[in-house]
This record gives sequence, structure tokens and C-alpha cells, in this order.
Amino acid sequence: MNPILDNLEIELPSWAFGNSGTRFKVFGTPGTARTVQEKIADAAMVHKMTGLAPRVALHIPWDTVDDYAALSAYAHEHGVELGTINSNTFQDDDYKFGSLTHTDKAVRQKAIDHHLHCIEVMNETGSRDLKVWLADGTNYPGQGDIRGRQDRLAESLAAIYQHIGPQQRMVLEYKFFEPAMYMTDVPDWGTSYAHVSALGERAMVCLDTGHHAPGTNIEFIVAQLLRLGRLGSFDFNSRFYADDDLIVGAADPFQLFRIMFEVVRGGGLDANSGVALMLDQCHNIEAKIPGQIRSVLNVLEMTARALLVDTDALAAAQEASDVLGANAIFMDAFYTDVRPQLAQWRTERGLPADPMTAFAESGYQDTINAARVGGTQSSWGA
Amino acid sequence: MNPILDNLEIELPSWAFGNSGTRFKVFGTPGTARTVQEKIADAAMVHKMTGLAPRVALHIPWDTVDDYAALSAYAHEHGVELGTINSNTFQDDDYKFGSLTHTDKAVRQKAIDHHLHCIEVMNETGSRDLKVWLADGTNYPGQGDIRGRQDRLAESLAAIYQHIGPQQRMVLEYKFFEPAMYMTDVPDWGTSYAHVSALGERAMVCLDTGHHAPGTNIEFIVAQLLRLGRLGSFDFNSRFYADDDLIVGAADPFQLFRIMFEVVRGGGLDANSGVALMLDQCHNIEAKIPGQIRSVLNVLEMTARALLVDTDALAAAQEASDVLGANAIFMDAFYTDVRPQLAQWRTERGLPADPMTAFAESGYQDTINAARVGGTQSSWGA
Amino acid sequence: MNPILDNLEIELPSWAFGNSGTRFKVFGTPGTARTVQEKIADAAMVHKMTGLAPRVALHIPWDTVDDYAALSAYAHEHGVELGTINSNTFQDDDYKFGSLTHTDKAVRQKAIDHHLHCIEVMNETGSRDLKVWLADGTNYPGQGDIRGRQDRLAESLAAIYQHIGPQQRMVLEYKFFEPAMYMTDVPDWGTSYAHVSALGERAMVCLDTGHHAPGTNIEFIVAQLLRLGRLGSFDFNSRFYADDDLIVGAADPFQLFRIMFEVVRGGGLDANSGVALMLDQCHNIEAKIPGQIRSVLNVLEMTARALLVDTDALAAAQEASDVLGANAIFMDAFYTDVRPQLAQWRTERGLPADPMTAFAESGYQDTINAARVGGTQSSWGA
Amino acid sequence: MNPILDNLEIELPSWAFGNSGTRFKVFGTPGTARTVQEKIADAAMVHKMTGLAPRVALHIPWDTVDDYAALSAYAHEHGVELGTINSNTFQDDDYKFGSLTHTDKAVRQKAIDHHLHCIEVMNETGSRDLKVWLADGTNYPGQGDIRGRQDRLAESLAAIYQHIGPQQRMVLEYKFFEPAMYMTDVPDWGTSYAHVSALGERAMVCLDTGHHAPGTNIEFIVAQLLRLGRLGSFDFNSRFYADDDLIVGAADPFQLFRIMFEVVRGGGLDANSGVALMLDQCHNIEAKIPGQIRSVLNVLEMTARALLVDTDALAAAQEASDVLGANAIFMDAFYTDVRPQLAQWRTERGLPADPMTAFAESGYQDTINAARVGGTQSSWGA
Repeated sequence: MNPILDNLEIELPSWAFGNSGTRFKVFGTPGTARTVQEKIADAAMVHKMTGLAPRVALHIPWDTVDDYAALSAYAHEHGVELGTINSNTFQDDDYKFGSLTHTDKAVRQKAIDHHLHCIEVMNETGSRDLKVWLADGTNYPGQGDIRGRQDRLAESLAAIYQHIGPQQRMVLEYKFFEPAMYMTDVPDWGTSYAHVSALGERAMVCLDTGHHAPGTNIEFIVAQLLRLGRLGSFDFNSRFYADDDLIVGAADPFQLFRIMFEVVRGGGLDANSGVALMLDQCHNIEAKIPGQIRSVLNVLEMTARALLVDTDALAAAQEASDVLGANAIFMDAFYTDVRPQLAQWRTERGLPADPMTAFAESGYQDTINAARVGGTQSSWGA
Repeated sequence: MNPILDNLEIELPSWAFGNSGTRFKVFGTPGTARTVQEKIADAAMVHKMTGLAPRVALHIPWDTVDDYAALSAYAHEHGVELGTINSNTFQDDDYKFGSLTHTDKAVRQKAIDHHLHCIEVMNETGSRDLKVWLADGTNYPGQGDIRGRQDRLAESLAAIYQHIGPQQRMVLEYKFFEPAMYMTDVPDWGTSYAHVSALGERAMVCLDTGHHAPGTNIEFIVAQLLRLGRLGSFDFNSRFYADDDLIVGAADPFQLFRIMFEVVRGGGLDANSGVALMLDQCHNIEAKIPGQIRSVLNVLEMTARALLVDTDALAAAQEASDVLGANAIFMDAFYTDVRPQLAQWRTERGLPADPMTAFAESGYQDTINAARVGGTQSSWGA
Repeated sequence: MNPILDNLEIELPSWAFGNSGTRFKVFGTPGTARTVQEKIADAAMVHKMTGLAPRVALHIPWDTVDDYAALSAYAHEHGVELGTINSNTFQDDDYKFGSLTHTDKAVRQKAIDHHLHCIEVMNETGSRDLKVWLADGTNYPGQGDIRGRQDRLAESLAAIYQHIGPQQRMVLEYKFFEPAMYMTDVPDWGTSYAHVSALGERAMVCLDTGHHAPGTNIEFIVAQLLRLGRLGSFDFNSRFYADDDLIVGAADPFQLFRIMFEVVRGGGLDANSGVALMLDQCHNIEAKIPGQIRSVLNVLEMTARALLVDTDALAAAQEASDVLGANAIFMDAFYTDVRPQLAQWRTERGLPADPMTAFAESGYQDTINAARVGGTQSSWGA
Repeated sequence: MNPILDNLEIELPSWAFGNSGTRFKVFGTPGTARTVQEKIADAAMVHKMTGLAPRVALHIPWDTVDDYAALSAYAHEHGVELGTINSNTFQDDDYKFGSLTHTDKAVRQKAIDHHLHCIEVMNETGSRDLKVWLADGTNYPGQGDIRGRQDRLAESLAAIYQHIGPQQRMVLEYKFFEPAMYMTDVPDWGTSYAHVSALGERAMVCLDTGHHAPGTNIEFIVAQLLRLGRLGSFDFNSRFYADDDLIVGAADPFQLFRIMFEVVRGGGLDANSGVALMLDQCHNIEAKIPGQIRSVLNVLEMTARALLVDTDALAAAQEASDVLGANAIFMDAFYTDVRPQLAQWRTERGLPADPMTAFAESGYQDTINAARVGGTQSSWGA
């Protein structure tokens, strides 16, 4: 396999190991983690099976603990590290009508303070990235002043950014819609880019693959943000219609292939590229740990296929405007089954050849099903 | 005003008076109804203000009571009647993977039995319509057998339909996506139409204005279903992106105008047309009772505008292929401000000229805010 | 390979061998066919390379000749047969405001007569299917009477249908939008289904894979129409946004896989299934003959992958509501590279192992580039 | 009326007076202009009827003449001025695979030179704006190198920009798709913004209201670009599905209202705002001159409604998070019929009270129908 594959690392979200659902229903599942420690243990199992998931992202306050240093040590003992810190300004009653953009200065300050608290957590966990995703927006035309909200957003972000340490970064996620239905305050990459450009060099864009209008060419945005030096991180998942948060690559594996091709093309898998690949999914009905393993494998497999593209031949065909020829070279890589080679690649690294089967046979699920009885299963906490 | 406006009646959903939200958060609001009786009282207030909302739809089991005859009497005393009965097969753990389409015959039977129970409720409340909306569907390709699910759906619906009384109807709602993300079992009007046609004359289609793919011409479907004699009812709401369940007419008042024009064109507002106009909205952040009043008024105002279309002149322009002329006749009606005449129309009927202001000045909201303390606010109950 | 693969036949459209373009520009290409005979010769070359494309669909009046029997003989000599006859009621000035739905009875009769002429052509060519795709629709609300147009459409279709011979069929294609922008008269499968059901048993639906709203689950429609016994034919192509008419499978190969899986599931590849697989593509910038070969191969390859699904294991996983297990079985087939086996399958049948290379090496393109000088290249003729 | 309405000016596109169509057919219409002079005469008639359309945009090479100074004088004599110069790099065979982004340096230079020629035209006509819309893009994944194309685009734009005079501007238009179907090189406002920011202060973004993905909140982009100081101009039209180029406001008048509200809110109608409002529409089936009059009136009427918003009350309601109250203030303006006041406003300015009727009664159409016989009707020239 292409040696660049060795640079592949995929960060797992702690919340993928808790319950999630739709507005209609959140179903529970036996064995679901009840504490952040149990989530980390589950994430560590994904890493043990795949060797590709060395970090776990936290969500504050869902994963609040008294002692983050102890939590880091706990993670380290389980073979993983703590990663990105995700803020949450959408589940407190005060944020019903906005957070960093709220008309009420007190609410804005509360939301800013929450982010400063997150930075303190980062200082303790050694996390690099503060990820800011905002539910801010409006449901009705006229409800908010679009322009004024942007100005307040810029002011709030600047107040947070000045506390970002020299080894830290802020990544600003955009989202087309939901939960706000008429207008979100950071709806597209252009808005996120305009804000992070104004903030400074350690502010970057976070691209969630499920946060675009229908038909949007996501790999174009990947290429553009890499070109502009502002692609900070991915939230990987897949979707058919809205922000479905399905297993990455499940809805359109060819799209994931194209995205990973542009990541490679733009240097996003180079050592120290600064591009963090993260999952952000919700396992509403599927088994959670296998769901994460499947997701990690999908990213791996599509990356491996993307690395098979004969880029010299492709460049020559592109140069010659050979439409079908260039496409054929591109598709040849996508159509190649890389799974046997990847099994060998894993074996060489001391990993299970077949992570899904290895997990099934590990007995881990039975163990946690038996152990995790009583208490409250983790969830989005809404 | 056109006398056909006197036929306008809009059914209110009991759940609009409880809390709802997104998967991210359900916010509470002071004064929110805690019982079905309180919901009915709120709905009755909407009718008192508008004179247009004489019926309240119930959702089973959210609105389950021991004595439906007593509940009917309660409603009647408040000036309204009980309307459509909505079944619910999406919030029981057994339905995690489907209800009427489930592979497990026992789960299917449970879902069928739930509908038979709903018919019993109808027998007690005197309701005409059983509305069936299914959350059934799958999230991943391969998860379910699309064809087999259709066959099971047909079988289950037939088992229910045979219990529908001679004065009753089943209306089958379709929905493009959500909560299932890859495939829903009744995704479009064609599927609903195929099923109700197979069932019999008392099976009809329910059209929810928020349940279509982007860009779908909804008024075309209205016209087509009226032509085919299968438009049973509407679930009115509005949307920008997904099934936003916003106030009807809020996102695109011109679309509501076009829909009401086709309803009138196809006889849907004629006496005994059999077309039930119902709201199905979720007031996540807006005041609930005013939200329903606003919704009723939007339907009224757009219907009144639609009734202003000079249909003789329009027909002549259409006959002559006069594109701009026909469009101008159509738009002239839409652009006319009917609110003054409607205020007078209300006054003549002993109703408040300005229902929104009348409600605000009624003191009702303060009363319920003070009275409804303690207990659990109604919600979707997920 | 699965023996059902031997039933695979893909009909080619004559117009794929002429020029096409967008509203912005139609580019010419050396060697483009100038006559229907040259188009047939090109199509025959696709069949010679692939063994899968034994029929050529004609478009009237683009492919009008004096002697259809002679044209059939010409095709037969080249190793192919004439197939579906496509009517055209969108390029005559009389049809500016509609054809079968026009308010002017004389225009409607002209359009009906055109279809009767097409049936006469079918009688001479021995074609089974008359394909009706209509550009009818309106650009502005109010421009046409939606309901009246449906009634006229039904009447016109009935007038045509009564001339369809006992061995012939009418297939009615639907299209979401374009060239009409506000409303098309046959926008969705439901409308097509309602009309063909009213006509009779030899009226069927034609599903063009590019004619749906964003996010539509096409394989669901395939499954549904097969279940209802009304899937007459496919127009294969692919799209990213609108009716892009790109090479089938190019935009989303996984979607094509899912579609072919449902075709097989529903018996559409069984002998005498009555489901015609046809290409309907426009090669605006790509080489035309290789483009058709590539398209045929894409259908073949995705069908071969779909046939690899372990349907027993899949049914068991579906029965057990094993979401990830069922999906994995499905994906395993999609991820398998079938190209080596297909090369062998071709070799066994005396076909080139690599049709794309075989064509490139055949010298055919150079020959036609040299021969086809002067005259007017075929195009849509708009 | 609000005095800011006096600042309203709407530029007309010369090509709206020629024929246009879809890829299926371009229909002719009696009286269609055959020369740029006739187009200008038609545009002048629109201005005479409305008083709002003092400028005519040219498209090069469609409107190429030997003597632009003479053309300016001709326009001036007819009561209008020449406006924006639109380049065209999509109808020459050399541009089949791109223009400013082409892999072939010679083609890129040809495209650059075309723009330099356009600047020369501007120097002669006194036009301020060079509008660059590119058809560049690809139809198939792999066909082009997304990143390389961006770099070549940046280089080409810089080569053009350095010739933009101190009183001139370059406006870069973005478009979601079409004619390229997989990827366009300037697909969204973010890309256009990134390029114009890199170029300099006289480079601006052009927003075409039909060039967005489904569901995009266009007024948000308007507000954002005004905030960033980069909204150079509008191309107004309307759409239901794709880039339908219908009469502005026809598909969704409420959207046009919201857009104009944000234009006003952001100072875009202030004197010397630098925001050019232009129409860019195609009258495929509708009468051309009345179509332009209707378009101008739609912009006027929605602007007048937007100016009715009680902004103090709105700000107070927004400040108080009064969702329904703020929305009601907003909608009250939209629902108000401004046509009588606008008729009076026109009368006071010596204009026809009813421009549509005035045009119909003017005899102009009959005159040109009779006069413009023979010759070739203007069209896109594809």
C-alpha cells in the first residue's frame, strides 16, 4: 500500500457511544456507555481493532468531569488520547434564541464563557482543537437581523479566539440548516472562511460532510479550503437527504472516494498537514461500536482506493482533455477491491485482519451488555 | 367575500399545544398544556378567536383517556368537536425497526391492533378519519427488502381497513424522508395512491405540505389527487428545507395561495367535498396558541386571495396561450391585500376583527401561565 | 457469473451518435454520424464490442426515412435490430405551448397524428414499444389549467392507445422538470402510473434515471413499479444536479448497483420480463461511441455486482433486523471487483476482453473521421 | 413612498430582447430584434414605460459593433445608456474544455485576450463593470484537476484585473451548475469572494439569483456580501428548479421581498452604493418587452413593500426575541398592496400609471412586428 496510508488517523466522537435519535424517538441499546469513561473504553476498543483511531473527541458539558488530567490518564491507559473539545451552546434554556449571536449581551457572554471553559479543559487535556458548532439561527423571516447577528458573531468569536493558545486552534463548523430552519448563522463554507480569515492563523474551517445543500460538490470545497490553507478538520458522516449522520461512506462511497482523493491531492494526509479527520455520526438504530469500526474502515478503504489513482496518467489525460480517458483512470482506482491488501496491511501491523469479525468474536459486547446495567445510558442529554 | 369561504374549516392538532422540538433540544414554555383537556381548551380558544377551527385532532396514545365520550362532551362544552384520530407506531421500543412493515409478524400484529384500538376510539368520539402516518423505513441500503416491505404494508393496511366503518375513512400519509433516512415505506403520493386504490373507496391520501422532495410542485399533486378522487386530507405546515413543520404559509405564502387555488379549482372547498384541511405543525420556539391563530389566518387569507382570481378571464388567457396575461390575472389576486375585507367579514360573524390582538388582550395566556404550574408539560413524549 | 446475466440487453438510442449540447452551445465532433444509417452503423459497433446492445431506438422525425423495411434490413445486416420508437412533439413551432395537452384541439390532433404515424413506423420496423415523452408543461403559475391539462392528456393518450397493436406497448415517461420550468404534465411516476393504469394492460411506465427531484430514492420506484406490474422500460443515464444525461453510473455507481439489484429482485431480468433497459444519454463533450461502450459496460458491471449479493444471507440478516450485518452483505457485493471475471465471460463468448481498448485499436474512429466529411452532422435538430 | 425608492435603477440585458430557449428548442417570436440597435430600442421602450431601466448591458461578441461610441450615442438618443459589458467564453469551439482554466495556455490566453478586448469596449462605451461569468467546469469526476483549475483561474483573473481601469470594476459571477454538470470552477459565493478578495478592491462578486443549490438562503448571502463590502451586482431572475431564468419574482415573490429588504438593510440602495441591479433572464415563451417591463415592476413592487417594514418596531421585537411579533411586522409589509401608491408615484413622475397597459396600447409591438421582417433574429448565437 501507499506509505501515505500510514498517516491516516481518524478521531472518534465520544457521543457516538451514547444514545442518539431523531426528534421522534431515541431508542436505547443494551451495553450503551453510561459515563465518559465507558465511552472512552469503547473508543479504545475501536482503536484496538483498527489501529486507526487513536483519539477521542469530547463534548462539553456531556463529558464533563472533575479531573481532566485523570481522564487523560485513563484514556492513555486504554491506548488512546483525548482529542478535540466540542462546545455546546444549544441545550441550555438560555440559548433558545441564540448563543454567540443572541441579542442579549448576557447570553452572549455566557456562551463566550462556556467556550473559555472549554479552552481551560483543552489546557488540561492537551487538546489542540476547539470545535465550534452553533445551533444559532432563526426559523422565520424577520425573526432576527441577519446582518446584526453576523456582527455579534464576529465579536463573540474574537473574544474567544484571543484565549486560544499558541499551540491551539479554533475550528468553526458550518451547517446549511437544522436545528434552525430559515437561517443559520454559519450556513456555508464561505461564511466560516470569512470569519476565520478575520480571526487569525489559528482559526480554521471545519467541514461536516452532511452539512450542505442538496447537490453540493463537497470535494470542490475540500480542494478550495486546502488551497486557501483553511481546512482545519472534517466531521465525517453520510447522508441521503438532510444531516442524517449515517456511517461515513454508507450513502455514497464514491463521494467519499472523491473527497479523500482531494484530501491527498491537497496535502491533507501529509505528515503535520493540520487536517484532522473526525467522525461525527449518530448510531440511532445500528450497533454503536461496530458502527464506528465500520466507519473507520470505510474511510480507510476509500483512502486506499484514492491512493491507487495513477496520478501521472491522470494528469496526462487531463492535459489532453481526454474526458473518458481521465475518468477511466479515476474510476479504475475506485473499482479496485483493496480489501485483501488492507487485510494483509493490518496483519503486518499486528492488527486483526478482519476488524468487524474480530470485534464480534472478542466478547466485548457481551461483557458490556452484562456489566452496564443500571444507571443512565449516555445520550445527547437534550 | 366569495361565499365559498364560508365552507372553510381548519382542524387543529392537539399536539400543537404541547412542547415539541428538534433532535437537539425540546424547550419548554410557560403555560403549556399538560393534559388533553388543556390542549382542547387551548384549541377552543383558537376557534373562539377565528371561527374557523371547530375540530381538534387527537394523537393516540398521547391523548389517551379512559372515557372518550366524556372527552367529546368536554370538547363540545368548549365549543369544538373531536376530529381525526392519529395513530402512533413510532415511539414504542418494539417499533425500532418498523411497525406495519416489520419482518416480525408479532410486531406487525401489535401495530395493527393499535390501529384497531384507534378505530374503537373513533367509534366513541364520532371521528370520521383515521390518519395513518408511518415512521417505517430503513437507514441503510440492504437493511430491508423494499419489495417485501411493500407487500407486508399492503397486508397490514388491509387488515386495518376492513374494520373501518361505513361512515369512516382511512387516510394514508406519505413522507419523503425522516425519521428513516435511506428509504421510507410510503415516500410519495404515488405509493399512497397505489395502496389506497387497492384498499377501497374509503381509503384516501393525506398530503402533508412538508413531506416532499425539494422543488416538488405540490399544487400539481393537489390537482391530480382531486382529479383521481383520492385527496382525503391535508396536513398543513411550511418548510424551507426538510419537514420543518413551521407555520403554514410562513415559508412561501405564494405556494399556499397556489395550493388553495387548486383546492378550490378541484372542488375541495365545496360543501361535503370530503377534503379535510388540518394543521400539523410544531411550535418549537414560537408561542403556541398565537402560532395556531396565525396559521389559521394564513390559510384563510391565502384562500381569500385565491378566490379573487378572475377565473373567466384566466381561462380566456389560458385558452389563448397568453403567458404573461394569464400569469398577471393569477398574480393580481395574490397581490391584493384582503385583510381589511376579512376583518369586516369576521366582524359580521361576531368574531374579533383582529384575532391576534384579541387573543393578546384576552388575558388567556396570563391565566394559563399562572394556572398551569406543576405537572408535566405535554410533549411528543419521545 | 450468474446465468441471469445472459438475459442482459441494453438498447441504444440513435441520437447518442449525433451531436447534443446544452442551451449554451452544441459542439461538433469529427466523425459524427450524419444519417440514421451512420448512427446505426455506430451502434452496431458498440454491439460488436460488447455483445450487449442488440437494438437501436429511433427518434421520429430525427430518424425519418422513406423505407423503414429497408432500414430494418440495413440494421440487421449490421448485426442489430431496430427497437423502441420515440415520438417528438417538442420541436415544431406549433408545440410552443404544448402538444397532447394544448388548449387548441387542432394542435392536440396534430400531436396525436404524429403518434399514429409513429405506430405505423413501428408496424414497419417490428418495434414493440412506442415511447412517449412530452415536453408539455408551463413556466408560470396561472399559465395553464393544471387540471384541464390532465384531462386533455388523458383524452389524447387514449386516442393514441387504441391504435397500439396487440404485440405493441405504449410506455409513458415522466420528468420532474425541463424544458417546462414551473410544471410538467407528467412530472412523477405516480402521474404516469395513474394514466397507464387507466389506459390498459399494454400501457407501461418508462423510468428515466435522471428525471427525479433531488434525493429521490429511485430504486424504491423500481421496486414499486415492478410490484405493480407497470415498469415498462428504463432510460438510463446519470446526473449530479438536473437531467444531466451523463454516462449511466458515472455520477453514482452505487445507485446504479442498487437499481439493478431491485430490477433483479423484482424479476426485471427474467426472460420475457417485459422490462426494456435503454440508454438515453447525451454525449456533449465526450467521444460518442466510446461513451456508449462505457455506458453499456457500467450497466453490465453493476448488474454483475448486484448478482453477487448473497440473497439468502441478506434475507436472514433482514429478518433479524441486523442493520449492519445486512448492509455489510449488500456492500460486500458492491465492493467486489467483477471486471476480471467479466473479461473472461466476454472472451468465452467470442467478444473482446476489453471493449474500450478493442474499439480504440479497431481503427473505426479514424475511418469514420476520414469518411464523414461534408454533409450535416446529426443533432437534436433544434 | 420612501424616498430611497428614487435610487432604484435596474439594468436590462440586451439579450433579453433576442431569442433564447432550452436545449430542446429555441422558438422564434414576431418582432424579435435582429441587431443590437433594435435591442437597445426595445430596452429604451422599457425605460420609457417604467422610468427605472436607464441602462442596457451588452454581451460580447453577441453585440459586437464597429463603432461603440456611435452605439453609445445611439443609446443616448433613445434615452438610455450602455452599461455592464459581459464577456463570453463559452461559444467558441476552442472553449469546449474550458477557457480561463483550460490546461492549454494558448486557450487561456485567448480567453484573457477576449476580456482585454471587453475592457477596450468598456473604455469606449464608458461602462463601469466587466462581468465575468464562466462556463468552465467538468462533467465527470477525474476529468479535470480541481485544484489546478483554481490556480489557473486565479492567474487568468489577475492577468485581466490588472487592465481594469481605476473607474472600472470586475464582477465575478458564480454558478452552482450548468453547463458543466459535475463541477463548475466558480460554484459558490465563497469561491467568488476568495478570488475577488485576492485580486483587489475593484473586484466584486456578482450574485445571480438563479445560481444556487436548492434551499439556499439567498438573502443571507446578500447580507453577508454587503457586510464584507463585496456585493458588486445582481443578476435578477427567478427559478423553480435550476437556472430557469424566469421573470424575477415570478417563482417566489416573497423571496424577492426578502432579498430587497436585505439590500436596503445593507445600504445597497443608498446613493453610490456600488450595487448594480441587473436583470438576466431568458424569455423563451413569453413576450419579450412586456416580460422585461413585468420584471422591472416586480423589483419595484417588492422593493416598495420592503421599504414599508417598520424597522424600529422590527428591531424592538427582534431584541425581545418575539418570534411571532417580529415575523408579523415583516409580513405586514409584504402583505400590503403597494400598487395603487406606485401608480400614483409613477404619475407624479410623468410615467404611465400602468406600464403594462401603456405598452400594450402604444402600438410599439405591432410596429416592430411589421418592421422586423427578414434578416436573422438575435439569439444566443449558439
